[in-house]
Amino acid sequence: MNDLVKLFETIRNRTEEICAPLLTEDYVVQPIDFVSPPKWHLGHTAWFFETFLLLGKDNYAAFDPQYNFVFNSYYESVGARVVRTDRGNLSRPTVADVYEYRHHVDKEIIARMDEIESDERLREILILGLNHEQQHQELLFTDIKYILGHNPLFPPYDLGYRDPLPFSPVHNAFIKFKEGLYTIGHDGEGFAYDNEKVRHQVWLEEFEISTQLVSNADFLAFVAAGGYQNFAFWHSDGWQWVNDNKFQAPLYWYQIDGEWMQYTLNGLRKLNLEDPVNHISFYEASAYAAWKKMRLPTEQEWEVAAPSLDWGRRWEWTNSAYLPYPNFKKEEGAIGEYNGKFMVNQMVLRGASDVTSKEHSRATYRNFFHASTRWQYAGIRLVKDS
Amino acid sequence: MNDLVKLFETIRNRTEEICAPLLTEDYVVQPIDFVSPPKWHLGHTAWFFETFLLLGKDNYAAFDPQYNFVFNSYYESVGARVVRTDRGNLSRPTVADVYEYRHHVDKEIIARMDEIESDERLREILILGLNHEQQHQELLFTDIKYILGHNPLFPPYDLGYRDPLPFSPVHNAFIKFKEGLYTIGHDGEGFAYDNEKVRHQVWLEEFEISTQLVSNADFLAFVAAGGYQNFAFWHSDGWQWVNDNKFQAPLYWYQIDGEWMQYTLNGLRKLNLEDPVNHISFYEASAYAAWKKMRLPTEQEWEVAAPSLDWGRRWEWTNSAYLPYPNFKKEEGAIGEYNGKFMVNQMVLRGASDVTSKEHSRATYRNFFHASTRWQYAGIRLVKDS
Amino acid sequence: MNDLVKLFETIRNRTEEICAPLLTEDYVVQPIDFVSPPKWHLGHTAWFFETFLLLGKDNYAAFDPQYNFVFNSYYESVGARVVRTDRGNLSRPTVADVYEYRHHVDKEIIARMDEIESDERLREILILGLNHEQQHQELLFTDIKYILGHNPLFPPYDLGYRDPLPFSPVHNAFIKFKEGLYTIGHDGEGFAYDNEKVRHQVWLEEFEISTQLVSNADFLAFVAAGGYQNFAFWHSDGWQWVNDNKFQAPLYWYQIDGEWMQYTLNGLRKLNLEDPVNHISFYEASAYAAWKKMRLPTEQEWEVAAPSLDWGRRWEWTNSAYLPYPNFKKEEGAIGEYNGKFMVNQMVLRGASDVTSKEHSRATYRNFFHASTRWQYAGIRLVKDS
Amino acid sequence: MNDLVKLFETIRNRTEEICAPLLTEDYVVQPIDFVSPPKWHLGHTAWFFETFLLLGKDNYAAFDPQYNFVFNSYYESVGARVVRTDRGNLSRPTVADVYEYRHHVDKEIIARMDEIESDERLREILILGLNHEQQHQELLFTDIKYILGHNPLFPPYDLGYRDPLPFSPVHNAFIKFKEGLYTIGHDGEGFAYDNEKVRHQVWLEEFEISTQLVSNADFLAFVAAGGYQNFAFWHSDGWQWVNDNKFQAPLYWYQIDGEWMQYTLNGLRKLNLEDPVNHISFYEASAYAAWKKMRLPTEQEWEVAAPSLDWGRRWEWTNSAYLPYPNFKKEEGAIGEYNGKFMVNQMVLRGASDVTSKEHSRATYRNFFHASTRWQYAGIRLVKDS
Repeated sequence: MNDLVKLFETIRNRTEEICAPLLTEDYVVQPIDFVSPPKWHLGHTAWFFETFLLLGKDNYAAFDPQYNFVFNSYYESVGARVVRTDRGNLSRPTVADVYEYRHHVDKEIIARMDEIESDERLREILILGLNHEQQHQELLFTDIKYILGHNPLFPPYDLGYRDPLPFSPVHNAFIKFKEGLYTIGHDGEGFAYDNEKVRHQVWLEEFEISTQLVSNADFLAFVAAGGYQNFAFWHSDGWQWVNDNKFQAPLYWYQIDGEWMQYTLNGLRKLNLEDPVNHISFYEASAYAAWKKMRLPTEQEWEVAAPSLDWGRRWEWTNSAYLPYPNFKKEEGAIGEYNGKFMVNQMVLRGASDVTSKEHSRATYRNFFHASTRWQYAGIRLVKDS
Repeated sequence: MNDLVKLFETIRNRTEEICAPLLTEDYVVQPIDFVSPPKWHLGHTAWFFETFLLLGKDNYAAFDPQYNFVFNSYYESVGARVVRTDRGNLSRPTVADVYEYRHHVDKEIIARMDEIESDERLREILILGLNHEQQHQELLFTDIKYILGHNPLFPPYDLGYRDPLPFSPVHNAFIKFKEGLYTIGHDGEGFAYDNEKVRHQVWLEEFEISTQLVSNADFLAFVAAGGYQNFAFWHSDGWQWVNDNKFQAPLYWYQIDGEWMQYTLNGLRKLNLEDPVNHISFYEASAYAAWKKMRLPTEQEWEVAAPSLDWGRRWEWTNSAYLPYPNFKKEEGAIGEYNGKFMVNQMVLRGASDVTSKEHSRATYRNFFHASTRWQYAGIRLVKDS
Repeated sequence: MNDLVKLFETIRNRTEEICAPLLTEDYVVQPIDFVSPPKWHLGHTAWFFETFLLLGKDNYAAFDPQYNFVFNSYYESVGARVVRTDRGNLSRPTVADVYEYRHHVDKEIIARMDEIESDERLREILILGLNHEQQHQELLFTDIKYILGHNPLFPPYDLGYRDPLPFSPVHNAFIKFKEGLYTIGHDGEGFAYDNEKVRHQVWLEEFEISTQLVSNADFLAFVAAGGYQNFAFWHSDGWQWVNDNKFQAPLYWYQIDGEWMQYTLNGLRKLNLEDPVNHISFYEASAYAAWKKMRLPTEQEWEVAAPSLDWGRRWEWTNSAYLPYPNFKKEEGAIGEYNGKFMVNQMVLRGASDVTSKEHSRATYRNFFHASTRWQYAGIRLVKDS
Repeated sequence: MNDLVKLFETIRNRTEEICAPLLTEDYVVQPIDFVSPPKWHLGHTAWFFETFLLLGKDNYAAFDPQYNFVFNSYYESVGARVVRTDRGNLSRPTVADVYEYRHHVDKEIIARMDEIESDERLREILILGLNHEQQHQELLFTDIKYILGHNPLFPPYDLGYRDPLPFSPVHNAFIKFKEGLYTIGHDGEGFAYDNEKVRHQVWLEEFEISTQLVSNADFLAFVAAGGYQNFAFWHSDGWQWVNDNKFQAPLYWYQIDGEWMQYTLNGLRKLNLEDPVNHISFYEASAYAAWKKMRLPTEQEWEVAAPSLDWGRRWEWTNSAYLPYPNFKKEEGAIGEYNGKFMVNQMVLRGASDVTSKEHSRATYRNFFHASTRWQYAGIRLVKDS
């Protein structure tokens, strides 16, 4: 079996492994607009390969022509689609139908792998599709956690689930970086998204950055000090958001009979104080930093410092808006819709998280979400000006 | 086996028979706030018997104390509940859990049937519970139709499903009733809801009522004549509603390649012109009547005329608001919440429909919905003043 | 001067007298969708006469062709209109423009009064226009009260304003009416709206009705007894409404430093306990009656009892929905839109209020508002079944 | 008269001159949440001086203690305030009251000018207040234009109003800037807001920037080419925004009988093709640039190029998010709320506009609005990568 087939099968199987602990009903629901039903993720990732590598090819007939309507996410060039808020309204195609669809696409892709491998453009799309699948693997975890964690019965995803260990715990310290010209962005070795390119120079002022993430214990001190009740620490939009939603703590934290609990993938557990804080919005991250009289790093500072940091358990909010790098070029056609059109109104997160798929983490990676997003595995790292 | 056990089992089984053609996923979704997932109907009807006949009894422990929260519909006296719009967000309890709950409740009720039968109050609640179950059987049909009929794949509920035949087709005619004192309301023989009582006199002016329902062919003429575009036929609220929703035809009607189709329980079919029109709101019924220069009957007129009418295929919109009869008395406690608290802002429908459960149809029955409701099996009968 | 000119001038002047205490800014604002700026009432009542009696007549040119767009309220037959929620967004035409418009219309109508008087149809429209103006006189009071009563400075409308005295205070008592056939509706003597016609028979069961309205002291007892916190007294829609809006007392009641105050047309005053309760919705009226283990009258009961009652200070909520009388006929054309199209989703009020214009009160009058309406001068009268 | 008094009087009078053509009613309305009534601007700018320079001082009593509630805009440290959407609901204080308030504050400030001038902190606040007043002078123009331009009568603000001439029209060309280290930010000479500080180095890649703004003729070509109907040019959020709002052209453009018209401060006029395009959102600016296969400048590029550009007629959208400069420090207390708390979810505009107050324009000035903002005098300048 050639390496590309092996890679393809490994990644595609990983998606199904993530879903293995689910019951049929768990695949179907969409408790809030930004969460997609697991069934939809399974179908959409197959749709990506079918649409961009199989449809229109000799001897390939669409598995079901209606599926383009059901599983297209946001590619305007590829036609009409079910609006995002309706994904949880569809009982059909069933879970079994969707698995059948996946396996059909897998078989067809593998049968054409030699052809794909030998055509640079097709090979690039395949690799993009696999990276795309890995992004959805992370979303599967965060969406499953949301679905089960908002059920009044608090069912665990998998009682045996364990978060990965931190890479290499080091003593917390602030490391200083001198002002100067630095180079950031992807260097072209291996896969990277268009938004990580091109490699370019940036001038940074002197800054000091923490080697460790902010912990639950740290954040609990902010909660206890009335941080959610004092506008002085918040952006204006953040203060509005906190008050509209009556938030008092991170997502999945519950104070029950005076004790702080958190919902985790193995159920409702006592809050683990040593863990890095998780499931907070940019607004909360920024307010915490203001309370500490520090700030969040920019994405440029983060990337420059990355080799010295202990990272990989939380996506880390930066104070950088998601914007194109100098000389950014969008690809032609539907693939060009992948990143560029989202470059407004979002903030950059750097790093990777406990549920990031293996081989899908690198220091140049730019994740991005709206400032109010909480259901991702997002945390805080502090910076101080010298 | 005693008669009450037999009646109980027959009605309870009927609910499960209605669900037999469903796939697991179909039980879970809630495409719009007023539709409940079939899983919820199954659980809620069991909850009714558990709550009002089993909880608090010797030797009975709740199947799951959380289920009160999940399956209570609107009984404020019985505690907190999942808000109606969230019913489709719950993947747990699963379909299998809910069937287990039903069977547990059934076994416990049957084991206590002698005790229930011998206590007039308990017996009344059991009979109310069975009538309640029959109401939900009708809602199961209308909600399943909504769920499948709004899926872009238009899956049939059951390809072999056939609507019941009309009772006894008679030649269409207007029958005249003289002005005078008439008596309406339930006479106390057999079961009736509190809202059908007490029997009382009403004075009616002379009127003429059609023996037949308005057909799809009739209503298509209204559509073709621009009825949905001419405010002169509509209530002010109805005109707003038509324009806000851009409605052009009854629910489940689709004009495809110039031909009118309708979604039915056995799939998408050519519009049957002879069928009585279905799935229209009070606003549409009323606008149609205005276009014909006639009107809808009052519920009193309908009940007086019922013995002379061919009825039972559609719930028929009346021009009566849902209000208490003279000397209406609400029962004490949670059971008293059954009807009285809904007596504002709704219109009365009379008759019964293709999906009304057997033995659940009588001339004194008062159904009620908001004027904008379309997903019920509702149609039109005309009246003219002499 | 002929009598019709005199009547016309008296009623038209009365509208301007009501506005005399206002400052220019008070004419312009619309703090909530259902309130119209006083400027709009002034223009709309002139528009009515211009549209239905002047436009299209020889030698009459529209004062400003744009005014039809600005001052049409809801007459679909007469063309497009500013949506209701936008009336407070218009700084032009100015208050001075609107007064000029009124005086122009007045002059033109008076100049043609002989012609109008001699044509039965035109005379009827003129009389309808004057009654229409009187309805807006009442709305001017209620809208001005809302505008000033929701200003944080609580400016009085007129420090010298005094509510009229009650007609003839009588000892509170319940008067019994025997079951039987009664006749209600307008008898054709003098002006009446189409919705008061035709006179017809109704059968009523025996009932007892209070001669007096419920007082502020009475209603305060309901507030103090936790009436707003106990769902048992409320309609389901009413309970939702109370909780969504966090209402705890009638509109314009404020508890300041432990004392109950009310905003009145002469400013913020201590709550007058003897006054009939005011500014409550149907939901509140109905909940109060339930708490007293009584009920509201139907509109038929009210009309039958009216000669024995002390009425005229509050519009009184009935438990009747606003529906057509038997043999109700809508007029042709725009005038036919006056009442009929509102006959759904509203409740009937009977009586008249402190701010009802003189000569605009009669026992057959049917006022109607949505069940949640509070800004009208609405109160409660109780009925008990025998 | 000392210079500071003179400056104070000149700027304060300028605000009143801007309002001179208004009628009383124009001061009161708020047709959309982001527009404030002119009356409110007049009061709020006085409130700023009263709150930060007079309240709490010896011998100063608040003009009206309620005014803090009415005229505070967003300073959380200074207490509760009327929510922004309610500003147009207040008929009181009247326009005359507000002018009286202004003159009272002016007199008191002038009486204490020696004291203010001699205290560095007070002097800084006075200067900040004057710059704040100049910002509101610009908003007065944009809000007045919105109020009159959305009135169906399209009243002119002032028939004699003329936009200032462009500074020095030059031949359109793209000027190239080499990659390298540049310095931007305010150098400390004269007044600047905290968000313009501190002066710092940035590394820029080579770019070419247009000396001229995009004209109405240019933008009309985009409209005619179907630019508003082709998602390929738009951000995802922008495409949603265009479709939700059904936008087809810039704000104030109307196609009447086939001809393009625009609402201007002297009324509805034929579209002037030579004028720089105006009243477009960031989304439209960005889509136009994409259609031209170019891009918007970053704010750093703009500032570096400014000395070579013809600027000052439109605020120019940049592709930079509004974020703090390196080493940005927020001031303590209420004054610290001026800028920092808005540094999320907004885009930077550079330059100045036809309605920017004199002496309030400099190359380091950073204006900021949400990407969907259209009612400001915003336009487009193009950049291309080399």
